[in-house]
Amino acid sequence: MSQQVPPPPAVKLVTAFGSPFAHRVEVALTLKGVPYELVTEDLANKSEMLLTHNPVHKTVPVLLHGDRPAVCESLVIVEYVDEAFDGPRLLPADPYGRATARFWAHFIDNKCLKPLWLSMWTHGEAQERFARETKESLAILEAQLEGRSFFGGDALGFVDVAACTLAHWLDVLEEVTGVRLVTDGEYPALRRWAKEYTSHQAVKRFLPDRDQLVAFFAAGKERFTSMVKAAVQQ
Amino acid sequence: MSQQVPPPPAVKLVTAFGSPFAHRVEVALTLKGVPYELVTEDLANKSEMLLTHNPVHKTVPVLLHGDRPAVCESLVIVEYVDEAFDGPRLLPADPYGRATARFWAHFIDNKCLKPLWLSMWTHGEAQERFARETKESLAILEAQLEGRSFFGGDALGFVDVAACTLAHWLDVLEEVTGVRLVTDGEYPALRRWAKEYTSHQAVKRFLPDRDQLVAFFAAGKERFTSMVKAAVQQ
Repeated sequence: MSQQVPPPPAVKLVTAFGSPFAHRVEVALTLKGVPYELVTEDLANKSEMLLTHNPVHKTVPVLLHGDRPAVCESLVIVEYVDEAFDGPRLLPADPYGRATARFWAHFIDNKCLKPLWLSMWTHGEAQERFARETKESLAILEAQLEGRSFFGGDALGFVDVAACTLAHWLDVLEEVTGVRLVTDGEYPALRRWAKEYTSHQAVKRFLPDRDQLVAFFAAGKERFTSMVKAAVQQ
Repeated sequence: MSQQVPPPPAVKLVTAFGSPFAHRVEVALTLKGVPYELVTEDLANKSEMLLTHNPVHKTVPVLLHGDRPAVCESLVIVEYVDEAFDGPRLLPADPYGRATARFWAHFIDNKCLKPLWLSMWTHGEAQERFARETKESLAILEAQLEGRSFFGGDALGFVDVAACTLAHWLDVLEEVTGVRLVTDGEYPALRRWAKEYTSHQAVKRFLPDRDQLVAFFAAGKERFTSMVKAAVQQ
């Protein structure tokens, strides 16, 4: 007697061109070997589908897995993918290693990427302050990489995907905005890591084309500037 | 032949009077039944010990467990406590439930407590904007509590300890600063939850005395105002 095994619930990822946060999830799904369907949003013109599935933050990435409500927020999604599917671990197995990985991923989001983004679209004193804050955080990350290929050690993991903006997006943002955070010779360990990260086989196919990325941020200049202005109320 | 079982590694929690973030960890350790030693810091005059163990954020709570470097950041510590020790689960067992709990805990930190704190120590337009943002987030949390005793369902868990500021600190901050975020009759589900939370046997002994808390924030008024001013650069 043959038994019908139901197919695993489908995975759908809602993404948008140029989003390093959506990139995190694509890499995580690939490292875990999870097949998924991609839905691409235009964040300048959000769909009903996006607003329905992520009513709180109204942005990508959004993960749909089977019939349950969406999982939102990139770091939450990456941990979910790690726990819900078989395949190599993205976070370490032991609680202490997991706590360390979460600590650094939050550090990257709150102390590094937030001021980095703000430093790109502000001016004057505020800009200088955000740039200084970003550089201080980069120096802390630089020290973390000492003697390691990746933040997690020998294999690419949770903290590396969290830090993807530094590997592929930072340099593009610098070019578009004219804000230089990193000058030649600074942060050599982060540069070496960026090379390792962007050439990793699970990563490189999900890196948006550099010229298209430059064009994307250049075209969005006004929108990003006014979004940031509203957020910091200069 | 008797075998010597080594004692479990000691747990030490570095805290400070009045910190809702340290409170989260005390409740988590208690719910898990983990004995610990308490070290109390004065954040206006930080010790070498604190700066050594938490060089990145330089604040409490800090958890020391055995000989390993400290675990820092309250939500990271609470998850660590949940995973490293036996006892009732603070986060759900299934990956989807865990993702949901993490989503709401991050929402509370980033979209609720951050603007709440800023709204307390700013003025004018900025203050109004932070107050509006906090109230929008409170309305979202209010909807989450519909039909539930706690954020996690019937038992107090991760999201409840994450939200502790709303149960015991908010009202004190309102009194000290004169900023009223919640008027009578608003957010009834959050009020009911706050009552449940503050009367829970694992919680109430860790709630700082109300009068002492009022005195603490009143005494720190100048320090908090200038800290916030530097952060938002008004």
